Amino acid sequence: MPVGLGEADLEGYLTEVRRLVMGEIERVIPRGTPYDAELYDLMRDYPLRDAKGLRPALCHAVCLAFGGRLEAVLPTAAVLELFHNAFLIHDDIEDGSWLRRDRPTLHRAHGVPIAVNVGDAMLALCLDPLLENTQLLGLGKALRLLQLVARMVRESAEGQALELAWIRGKRWELRDREYYRMVHKKTTWYSFLAPMVAGAIVAGADERQQAQLRLMASSLGLAFQIQDDLLNLEAAEREYGKEIEGDLWEGKHTLILIALLRAADPGERGMATEILARRRPVDAADDGTGVKTAADIALLRQLIDRHGCANYARTRAQARVRQAARRFASIRQSLPPSVHSEFLAGLIQYVVARVR
Amino acid sequence: MPVGLGEADLEGYLTEVRRLVMGEIERVIPRGTPYDAELYDLMRDYPLRDAKGLRPALCHAVCLAFGGRLEAVLPTAAVLELFHNAFLIHDDIEDGSWLRRDRPTLHRAHGVPIAVNVGDAMLALCLDPLLENTQLLGLGKALRLLQLVARMVRESAEGQALELAWIRGKRWELRDREYYRMVHKKTTWYSFLAPMVAGAIVAGADERQQAQLRLMASSLGLAFQIQDDLLNLEAAEREYGKEIEGDLWEGKHTLILIALLRAADPGERGMATEILARRRPVDAADDGTGVKTAADIALLRQLIDRHGCANYARTRAQARVRQAARRFASIRQSLPPSVHSEFLAGLIQYVVARVR
Repeated sequence: MPVGLGEADLEGYLTEVRRLVMGEIERVIPRGTPYDAELYDLMRDYPLRDAKGLRPALCHAVCLAFGGRLEAVLPTAAVLELFHNAFLIHDDIEDGSWLRRDRPTLHRAHGVPIAVNVGDAMLALCLDPLLENTQLLGLGKALRLLQLVARMVRESAEGQALELAWIRGKRWELRDREYYRMVHKKTTWYSFLAPMVAGAIVAGADERQQAQLRLMASSLGLAFQIQDDLLNLEAAEREYGKEIEGDLWEGKHTLILIALLRAADPGERGMATEILARRRPVDAADDGTGVKTAADIALLRQLIDRHGCANYARTRAQARVRQAARRFASIRQSLPPSVHSEFLAGLIQYVVARVR
Repeated sequence: MPVGLGEADLEGYLTEVRRLVMGEIERVIPRGTPYDAELYDLMRDYPLRDAKGLRPALCHAVCLAFGGRLEAVLPTAAVLELFHNAFLIHDDIEDGSWLRRDRPTLHRAHGVPIAVNVGDAMLALCLDPLLENTQLLGLGKALRLLQLVARMVRESAEGQALELAWIRGKRWELRDREYYRMVHKKTTWYSFLAPMVAGAIVAGADERQQAQLRLMASSLGLAFQIQDDLLNLEAAEREYGKEIEGDLWEGKHTLILIALLRAADPGERGMATEILARRRPVDAADDGTGVKTAADIALLRQLIDRHGCANYARTRAQARVRQAARRFASIRQSLPPSVHSEFLAGLIQYVVARVR
């Protein structure tokens, strides 16, 4: 248990919660059925890959910081990790991603049909522990958690719809606010807001405290996503584990590219939009017309550098981190000191300091 | 309301329940959001296409036959129709289907990314009315319905996994029992068993009655699926609304093909397996090697006719219909006479008499 840790070491805390959560996930995902090879084994694939386990750690830390118990929060924390991985499977299909945590994405390894089905079944499997919460936590809390999770899935889907609409409409003239809204729905809700509020519900935190946590989560989620966008451009390949510049190849709407399209002069803008509209080559042998080339990507990077778009994004991320820290400082006043609070405080800084 | 109907007309009953359910679905799916075009409008697409509305009608009929109230069952019936349509969206992606109710499938019209996302969001949206059931029906029934639905989604995914395993392993030497198990999970659970048991839960039917309904649903679901397989081969295109012979093009594991692979002599079996292993051409211009041709499909049909495989399947479907009728007769003894019971009795015959 983290309580027994000698030092409030962030990585150690994450590792310990991840160990507990993986045990719980092992309990939830069936084994020894006739469907293992095409279904249940594949559910374990993404969770077992090297991952930080940020969401369950947030849920766990908030719950325990607010005085909740480990056994009360563990099934819910595990469910959030499962949901996350189910979304990753479907997201990877939707984004056409190639790599996930250093290895081929599930649909590249097993085909889209199996990947769609595994994601669906994981979403359904998540309901079981949430229903068992009625016994563990009582009816009121169990229902609030179910409502939270239902809202979380919808928010994510709305965020995804927003981004897909931009892709379909080849829309790049976006205000930062529009990007922020998309991130709030697509990233913040299921990576920060729902995990933190879930922890608070399990601990029995009051409405005011939950509202404060929501605000803190909003700042943190945005900082996290902008940092994600930055890492995709600037990380060291060996540490990163995902495809460097994958966002440029996929034409993803990052704050960096949105800033570029705004800062560019008309000639540059025309060129950049044209490149972004090209599809990415399906494989190395794809030399069809209308596909992006390495030269295209290099040009985008040049433009990004020329207009200081990465720095623009970095400044925005740092401002949100400071905001999150202020918000947590005011929450923390009403909490007893604990390693869990220290974890949350440390995490806020980690969000922009991380290298992967 | 069906109670006010002058005659126990099956089509009329279905139409009336469908009208009620569509009103409820309109209430559940948001309108006027910034996500309508990529999300909520697309959720209405499949439900609005011409459909029988079999699942909500079953749920409604069982509930009212067992003395339950319309207002109590309507949200649950609508949720089952929504679930069904969410599955259809993902199924169509998994099966690579082209047509759904006379029109292009959602992923063919809007792309796989949007279709995956719409399906996910529909699954999440279904949770809302199920959670509101705690107010409408009380806690016990609401929880039992949530458990039923969670189980239903998993059963469907397991059935899908089973079929995908056969496709991946190019497995065709299957016993009827294996096919029956796949159908029980993939079709029966979410088309018959869950709707009927849901209606029974809302009405407050006891455990014994629920167990009887499960048995009846099992016979009915199997008969329904075999008839579906037969229609895909034999229906009149104008009435059918789906692609005739689509199952042969897709290499779907129907009882007919399973019977063929068993009855064929070694030469025929080799030929049939070879054809079934070919992929279907992506479009009319696809003349690549290893794709199925119209001549391939014609040959499969010849073999099916030669070995009487359609008749074999028809006999099996009829036996299950008789079994369902016997099972319902014993359930019916404890129910007061009603149009809802008459609907259920009529439906059992309709399952093999239908033309689409």
